[in-house]
Amino acid sequence: MTPVEPAGGTPAGDIEAREPQQRPPLRFWFEFASTYSYLSAMRIETLSRDAGTRIEWRPFLLGPIFRKQGWQTSPFLLHPAKGRYMWRDMQRQCERYGLPFMPPSPFPQNSLPAARIAHAGREQPWIGAFVRAVFMAEFGQGRDISDEGLLADILLDIGAPAREVLDASRSPGTKAGLREAVEEAETGGIFGAPSFVLADSELYWGDDRLEQALEAAARIPA
Amino acid sequence: MTPVEPAGGTPAGDIEAREPQQRPPLRFWFEFASTYSYLSAMRIETLSRDAGTRIEWRPFLLGPIFRKQGWQTSPFLLHPAKGRYMWRDMQRQCERYGLPFMPPSPFPQNSLPAARIAHAGREQPWIGAFVRAVFMAEFGQGRDISDEGLLADILLDIGAPAREVLDASRSPGTKAGLREAVEEAETGGIFGAPSFVLADSELYWGDDRLEQALEAAARIPA
Repeated sequence: MTPVEPAGGTPAGDIEAREPQQRPPLRFWFEFASTYSYLSAMRIETLSRDAGTRIEWRPFLLGPIFRKQGWQTSPFLLHPAKGRYMWRDMQRQCERYGLPFMPPSPFPQNSLPAARIAHAGREQPWIGAFVRAVFMAEFGQGRDISDEGLLADILLDIGAPAREVLDASRSPGTKAGLREAVEEAETGGIFGAPSFVLADSELYWGDDRLEQALEAAARIPA
Repeated sequence: MTPVEPAGGTPAGDIEAREPQQRPPLRFWFEFASTYSYLSAMRIETLSRDAGTRIEWRPFLLGPIFRKQGWQTSPFLLHPAKGRYMWRDMQRQCERYGLPFMPPSPFPQNSLPAARIAHAGREQPWIGAFVRAVFMAEFGQGRDISDEGLLADILLDIGAPAREVLDASRSPGTKAGLREAVEEAETGGIFGAPSFVLADSELYWGDDRLEQALEAAARIPA
């Protein structure tokens, strides 16, 4: 490309073709209580920018999906060997990614208040900063993310209109919208988090598939 | 290094330090019925040779471990959404690795006869070739690996003493040995396959962790 406007043809056609807004987005389904969602949440905005792919932030809740399978809590508690492994694996993955790691107590955390805020603000410019700050408080500092004071502080820190957002997060519309998001996830075949959905069909599950999902997104023509 | 023998010091000390036989091995726990074990089985010998790490082949059975958790069959059958995802993910991973993929019917296969042969021959020079041939028949060609005729053909193809090996695989010692291997796996915290165990402590689960397990193995001094 030359900085001089071309004499003919479609001006800046190549640039438009690479514009993230024009491409189908990668839907990022995350659950605030999920350890591996932390890994993806901290990495996805930088990686997707590099890949030229737009992210659609889709907070949801795994609890209702797990309960339909007969699980009353996290599979990491139901299966102690898997649980013990997960904590060690998370420690290793956080070291690899240069992320702090301090598990919260209790685990899993009650993620409903944070999920409602993220659902209400999912299209706001501060959504990425909010999601990262919540995950960092929870798994980087071991804090209780069901604490609405903490969530209000995070909103203020990132420059979001805290009072307005908290009110919106408690509205009937948000509550219903989040329930619908859970149904949409389940209907779309999602059974765990993080999950990545490309162009309404291709599903990728787990932080280990984030790079692959972004590679596939980059292969879709704008 | 110079090809000329040094005048003093320990001759070829650096070469000895890199000799795979001198290093603690990476234990490769695999289950012939497991789809993701196929991915690792086809890749591990080349990757471990490149990493200078010796592999200890540890066939085992997941059935007895799953049954203790109350699962009567594969979690991919118990959880249909996870099962559907697994087949699609396997298809994608096989494409990435350049492996053929044709799921066998029924799934999961009865892996006991193949596991007994692999247990009996786990320290034989043909073990890698046998394991790959069984997995390739099962997941590359969709064949039934409980068929002892197929297993005999594979042994002959790879130049193993088929009759002797099949007799050994049916011996009380092999049957007891495989049962003990399952107990050892469970005691070691293994809950799925493939799993990789480094220096009797560090556990890595899943084909996605094979490279990481080998990197960790390469960091251990001889």
